[in-house]
Amino acid sequence: MNTAKRAAQLLSTQNIRSLFDSVEAFLFDCDGVIWKGDKLIDGVSQTLDWLRSKGKKLVFVTNNSLKSRIQYAKKFHSLGISVAEDEILSSSFAAAMYLKVNNFPQEKKVYVIGGEGILAELQLAGYTGLGGPEDGEKRVELKPNSLFEHDKSVGAVVVGIDPHINYYKLQYGTLCIRENPGCLFIATNRDAVGHMTDLQEWPGAGSMVAAMCSSTEREPIVVGKPSTFMMDFLLQKFHINTSKMCMVGDRLDTDILFGQNAGCKTLLVLSGVTTQTTLQDPSNSVQPDYYTSQVSDLLHLLGP
Amino acid sequence: MNTAKRAAQLLSTQNIRSLFDSVEAFLFDCDGVIWKGDKLIDGVSQTLDWLRSKGKKLVFVTNNSLKSRIQYAKKFHSLGISVAEDEILSSSFAAAMYLKVNNFPQEKKVYVIGGEGILAELQLAGYTGLGGPEDGEKRVELKPNSLFEHDKSVGAVVVGIDPHINYYKLQYGTLCIRENPGCLFIATNRDAVGHMTDLQEWPGAGSMVAAMCSSTEREPIVVGKPSTFMMDFLLQKFHINTSKMCMVGDRLDTDILFGQNAGCKTLLVLSGVTTQTTLQDPSNSVQPDYYTSQVSDLLHLLGP
Repeated sequence: MNTAKRAAQLLSTQNIRSLFDSVEAFLFDCDGVIWKGDKLIDGVSQTLDWLRSKGKKLVFVTNNSLKSRIQYAKKFHSLGISVAEDEILSSSFAAAMYLKVNNFPQEKKVYVIGGEGILAELQLAGYTGLGGPEDGEKRVELKPNSLFEHDKSVGAVVVGIDPHINYYKLQYGTLCIRENPGCLFIATNRDAVGHMTDLQEWPGAGSMVAAMCSSTEREPIVVGKPSTFMMDFLLQKFHINTSKMCMVGDRLDTDILFGQNAGCKTLLVLSGVTTQTTLQDPSNSVQPDYYTSQVSDLLHLLGP
Repeated sequence: MNTAKRAAQLLSTQNIRSLFDSVEAFLFDCDGVIWKGDKLIDGVSQTLDWLRSKGKKLVFVTNNSLKSRIQYAKKFHSLGISVAEDEILSSSFAAAMYLKVNNFPQEKKVYVIGGEGILAELQLAGYTGLGGPEDGEKRVELKPNSLFEHDKSVGAVVVGIDPHINYYKLQYGTLCIRENPGCLFIATNRDAVGHMTDLQEWPGAGSMVAAMCSSTEREPIVVGKPSTFMMDFLLQKFHINTSKMCMVGDRLDTDILFGQNAGCKTLLVLSGVTTQTTLQDPSNSVQPDYYTSQVSDLLHLLGP
């Protein structure tokens, strides 16, 4: 049985028209696609304006859980791009929605290894979050007869990228998952690395999630890409067949796989973590439909 | 093909004599076997004295890399047990020896995610270690145009249990492994949890190692149990056939597997992280030759 995917096509003036005409909504990853750290990637603003002027719907789907949807909308505005809160799907929002659609009890608490965005989304959904940045400076005491206490009413641990990761949080989350009956273990995402700054890649949420998988000997529920959990919210909003969507991203194992899992067309941009060498390496099994250097190529290949 | 192992036998007055008579050296794990945190487990001291009086060789093989061999000898003495430095094999020592036997160049540096013990053993072996506890309070700056610098002369990253784990160290180690050509990635061990205190289990080196595996997309060289790398040093000292050794430990996936990988007899004690339920669960594929509640049972079943 031959399961090999057709190799990705370089986006060109020859093939872009058929992609463009068949797509009603473009789904964009953010880090490495729209921006790197706090710097907008060249030509993004003009390209998004032009796509809107051509009647395309735009959605921004990010695995970065450091911010809430409201905070992401503010970031877009500060970079000069007008994006509505409900055009943004973040893995922080997805974590809170996972609890909501699964009727997680309001009286149970949620321990967070991750950023402010997760806590903000939990609060908007009516839940009580613990941990997060607040526990970033806490230290453990490794002394005889000293018991590390944890809240027995924690019913879920949410793990995302955490630049303030420490041993206190790892032990807190581990005890909740191992000792609180039925405690859920939710990962916002498992990205290996991400552009936490414009100049460099940094360990992604995958590091914090892997650390917790090791200590708990459990696997998490992943709500971010490549899981299609977020697609349900998108379909509620747009009522567009996923075959008329194109997922644009810089990561093969999250963005492109997410698009393929959901039945979207897929476009890899080389402005983030994936190089052309990685894409074309024989060991890579994830082939997008198309690839190009950056988002603004859409405008340059087709625009005025 | 039937590959099922015979189920472990409970150690008893009926079967202990044949084990005892066939064994010339007892290899003991430390955490959960000799002590929990800084508390000696009941009856250990008398049992070790009695084993020595019967002419048995004793060796202590620990995956805990927080201390060096000299520091472990001091810990034994502070607990009233006389143990020579060369009766101790720690994964901190093993990491330094791995570099030595593989002719790691003295002019290259070693970045450490872990404790003082690794740095001390590296120094004894003539190497320059960086990181470790010193980097425990360092913070990252996630700012535009700010480059996180790392030492290009680092040729190996050693990862062990690190109660001061932080994002700075994860990024430092990740950059060395990803960007320094030929940089080695060495794990002292991958224990899921360990008795960092007498009352509780805590995330083990496995958490720090898994975090680094995720960000580097590499697998480490493991020098601690269940790898038999440390066995070579033991054989140099004792010249005893491994079939005449008995590995005594509390972990199936490190201690017992190490013993089995090396061809030793194996005895699981239930005084640490493994319960009888876990041992006898159908999903457990690692069966020691014998199991018993604690080390002092050796004395009680056979002694005066």
